[in-house]
Amino acid sequence: MENQSNQQLIQKLLNCALTCERCAASCLQEEDVAMMAKCISLDRDCSDICFQAARLLQRDSVIARQYLLLCEEICRLCAEECSKHHEEHCIQCAQACRECADACHANHQPIDQD
Amino acid sequence: MENQSNQQLIQKLLNCALTCERCAASCLQEEDVAMMAKCISLDRDCSDICFQAARLLQRDSVIARQYLLLCEEICRLCAEECSKHHEEHCIQCAQACRECADACHANHQPIDQD
Amino acid sequence: MENQSNQQLIQKLLNCALTCERCAASCLQEEDVAMMAKCISLDRDCSDICFQAARLLQRDSVIARQYLLLCEEICRLCAEECSKHHEEHCIQCAQACRECADACHANHQPIDQD
Amino acid sequence: MENQSNQQLIQKLLNCALTCERCAASCLQEEDVAMMAKCISLDRDCSDICFQAARLLQRDSVIARQYLLLCEEICRLCAEECSKHHEEHCIQCAQACRECADACHANHQPIDQD
Repeated sequence: MENQSNQQLIQKLLNCALTCERCAASCLQEEDVAMMAKCISLDRDCSDICFQAARLLQRDSVIARQYLLLCEEICRLCAEECSKHHEEHCIQCAQACRECADACHANHQPIDQD
Repeated sequence: MENQSNQQLIQKLLNCALTCERCAASCLQEEDVAMMAKCISLDRDCSDICFQAARLLQRDSVIARQYLLLCEEICRLCAEECSKHHEEHCIQCAQACRECADACHANHQPIDQD
Repeated sequence: MENQSNQQLIQKLLNCALTCERCAASCLQEEDVAMMAKCISLDRDCSDICFQAARLLQRDSVIARQYLLLCEEICRLCAEECSKHHEEHCIQCAQACRECADACHANHQPIDQD
Repeated sequence: MENQSNQQLIQKLLNCALTCERCAASCLQEEDVAMMAKCISLDRDCSDICFQAARLLQRDSVIARQYLLLCEEICRLCAEECSKHHEEHCIQCAQACRECADACHANHQPIDQD
């Protein structure tokens, strides 16, 4: 994936965040909610972090590109969990998370971990 | 304005929120930042509240439609302030805030104020 | 309840928000998660809205005191739901939400609903 | 600094976030706002990220400890900028940011950057 424009990246982040919100709300309506508990938790974290990433990029924050590293991490975790379930909202969420993770991967800057 | 679908309303809210983020960041780059101080404050509140409204709607929150009342209020205040300035980012922001305020107005539910 | 200082009010809001975060996370660990679904949803909304209220107050936002009206509403809904359950985290959450609702009630400003 | 309890860490994060909110609002009231533009931007990012970190910790998120790495980074940047100014709110903010950065540093987990 090539380096994307900010606007394309922001749209991927918002799409992922909205899909996670929808997935969490739908998981809470499922008959076997217990099976969805981990999915609900990850959806929430992923939504929070992707919305925040979109905002940092839109305001040209100095930390925005490093933030994408975290964003990629939570998107991968959320995609992995959602892909274990066969509900339509989980399938869509896994797809949105994977696309967002790839976009974050292609655009992030390293963080000094010392 | 007719009652809109959730998805149209969410797009208006996100558009307004992103425009406010951009306007605040651009105001901070202006030569006469002091003249923009009130605009920066309102942009920030408006962005925070519109993003939150979009999330509440997307997760079908019981409070979402009442939240739009607050959202309309901050959008009107932000539009009024932005319309005092002649920078392109303020003109765009005033327009996005007005459209969002109208959409919120057409879709909100009352709050019990007793 | 008397009109409180901003700092006392902010502490009540943060306490309520943190208690809701904890309650939602604990509800997701319960055996019968399905019974907790509504509680989890309300906890999340209440946490989001109380954190936002604290931030608006701390930055002296023009909208802060009107925002407390929404905040009171979600706190009452969350307290009502939590008080139906007998888990320790729900009992604590109901209490924190009621205290926060009362503090919001004593400090809010009206919103024009026309 | 020793590894701290979650609650101590959360209090440091919230203290830092609130101090940044106050600093940004105060900077916007200064006569020479232009000199404060970078400070206002960093305060905002730092507040957003520290509040989010506190919430992730409180809900025992799987990503919370990695998130602290980002949090440390923005706290250091904000402390560095605030320490260039002599206003009381900037001095307090630099101090809160440094304490928070140190706490994050002592408690974070590494992120895979490949």
